[in-house]
Amino acid sequence: MSTYTAIKLISRPEPGPVSPEIFEVVQEELPQAGPGEILVKQSHMSLDPAMLGWMSPDTESYIPPVELGAVMRSSGLGEVIESNHPDFAAGDCVMGMMGWTEYYLGNGAGLNKVQPGLDPEMVLSVFALPGLTATQGLFGFGDPKAGETIVVSGAAGSVGSLVGQLAKAEGLTVIGVAGDDEKCNWLLSDLGFDGAINYKTDDLAARLAELAPNGIDIYFENTGGPIQHHVFDRMNAHGRIVVCGMISDYGKSEPSPGPNWIPIIKKRLTIQGFAMPDHFGDVPALMGKLGPYVMEGKIKHRAHVLNGLESAIGGLNMFFTGGNKGKLIVKL
Amino acid sequence: MSTYTAIKLISRPEPGPVSPEIFEVVQEELPQAGPGEILVKQSHMSLDPAMLGWMSPDTESYIPPVELGAVMRSSGLGEVIESNHPDFAAGDCVMGMMGWTEYYLGNGAGLNKVQPGLDPEMVLSVFALPGLTATQGLFGFGDPKAGETIVVSGAAGSVGSLVGQLAKAEGLTVIGVAGDDEKCNWLLSDLGFDGAINYKTDDLAARLAELAPNGIDIYFENTGGPIQHHVFDRMNAHGRIVVCGMISDYGKSEPSPGPNWIPIIKKRLTIQGFAMPDHFGDVPALMGKLGPYVMEGKIKHRAHVLNGLESAIGGLNMFFTGGNKGKLIVKL
Repeated sequence: MSTYTAIKLISRPEPGPVSPEIFEVVQEELPQAGPGEILVKQSHMSLDPAMLGWMSPDTESYIPPVELGAVMRSSGLGEVIESNHPDFAAGDCVMGMMGWTEYYLGNGAGLNKVQPGLDPEMVLSVFALPGLTATQGLFGFGDPKAGETIVVSGAAGSVGSLVGQLAKAEGLTVIGVAGDDEKCNWLLSDLGFDGAINYKTDDLAARLAELAPNGIDIYFENTGGPIQHHVFDRMNAHGRIVVCGMISDYGKSEPSPGPNWIPIIKKRLTIQGFAMPDHFGDVPALMGKLGPYVMEGKIKHRAHVLNGLESAIGGLNMFFTGGNKGKLIVKL
Repeated sequence: MSTYTAIKLISRPEPGPVSPEIFEVVQEELPQAGPGEILVKQSHMSLDPAMLGWMSPDTESYIPPVELGAVMRSSGLGEVIESNHPDFAAGDCVMGMMGWTEYYLGNGAGLNKVQPGLDPEMVLSVFALPGLTATQGLFGFGDPKAGETIVVSGAAGSVGSLVGQLAKAEGLTVIGVAGDDEKCNWLLSDLGFDGAINYKTDDLAARLAELAPNGIDIYFENTGGPIQHHVFDRMNAHGRIVVCGMISDYGKSEPSPGPNWIPIIKKRLTIQGFAMPDHFGDVPALMGKLGPYVMEGKIKHRAHVLNGLESAIGGLNMFFTGGNKGKLIVKL
């Protein structure tokens, strides 16, 4: 009898770094696909900052929390090894929310087939949640126009790096904010950003004044933190702020205050929060928008690959430390 | 030779209550209308919270600051007493930005004729800036739907009282926030609000929980202050926040912090600031929207009338103290 490994969430995280104690690594008996079911051997899992929110017991969020005792939620790629489902065949490559597990058994709901031969790291870095999120956020809410200036926080992250490249391809001046010089150099040298700010060492106000002398039209917010206030102060009239992530506050017991709202009136700002599950119905259109940029070679990516299912546990804390260089992926 | 009185802004206000020293009361010689000009005898001036912003030297706001040495800006109603302009005749009643002056001389730009026989207090309370602002804010940005719950801060103020009544007419549950019990009673008894909160004496969180048990779909923000954070905490998914005024912070040297942005993502909130000058081109459409409610008797108002031009100076401070009961109007 063969077994496989899965990881379950068994308690809720406290504020701050994620303790390994909240997970349980379990060995399960390898099942067979029943009627209408498929069995998938997962090869790559995506780690995303949103997962930190999915573990919290907040029932008011955009997606129900992961239940205690359930396999931790995540998206990933794998190969169908057994199918009793008419839409899937053994050998198909599929992507979807399979969770922290080596094998996934289910009825195929929410799984999509992926063209064989695509690099799995590219698929998870560009076409999965990060690419959909970047495309929806920038084009669905940011209303980018050539000649405008955009600031992207978390710019070396999986979503931010795509937002910046898409904005650059649209003709905007793109300023990225990241947490170390290596990341800033990557933004400038490899991704073609117009400016990069190291939020840990730069004088934020001075650097923004230098890089965005005509003000900021779009702020794509992935992090929160002090940069938020400085960008807010330099927004232009009718500026758009797209709020996608607040990673710097997810681990705090007392989240930092936001800016006072007077500039929202004076500048007639639009601030829009969003989360991809609201837009899953638009995935074909988003893919249609994103695809041509990728085909034209305008979208680069880099993956930070961890090895083995259990590396996912420690991997989550990289979102707090910024230790990852590129899209976090767990290779199984 | 006859003269008239006007009031000029001669220095910028400090944070806090407005000092009378920043104004100069002047006597001017009564002019005659030159070619293409009209001379208007103003009868009623509107005092609006926005005027506090117009005096500040902030050149980034939605409207240029009042220049030092210029007549203080305000809207008002008056009668044309002399006209060399083809569109106006002596005896016409006109409304527009005539400023703090007993007589206005100009080429008629920005002045609109008003149907004779309308009560001037009703015109300034309902059809002038307050009504346009309330209609644009609620319908242009709030997206009100029958059955939803709206909270209006500054609910007994000129804009808030109209927003609440329009929302009530649209079938929403309407909760008003005001600064004393008399105002709260007026909201409940005269305007038909479903709930009223005295932000100075009530337990804000408890009262909101009681009055909005299913959460809040729209927040129409006229004031800022602690109520903002409590309402923010109870916003429903896809809630809309329309930011129209922040009167509680206009007089502070250090504006209060806003709420942390995590709920903007979790609830996918839309926060929209606006100012009427952006929408003056839509005035006919806004009037067309507002008019039927007024005709159907669904919109009540009350005016707080001060007498004489110089009463405008002290009147401005009523926005900080909440001392006015109804739309502030100066009768000349």
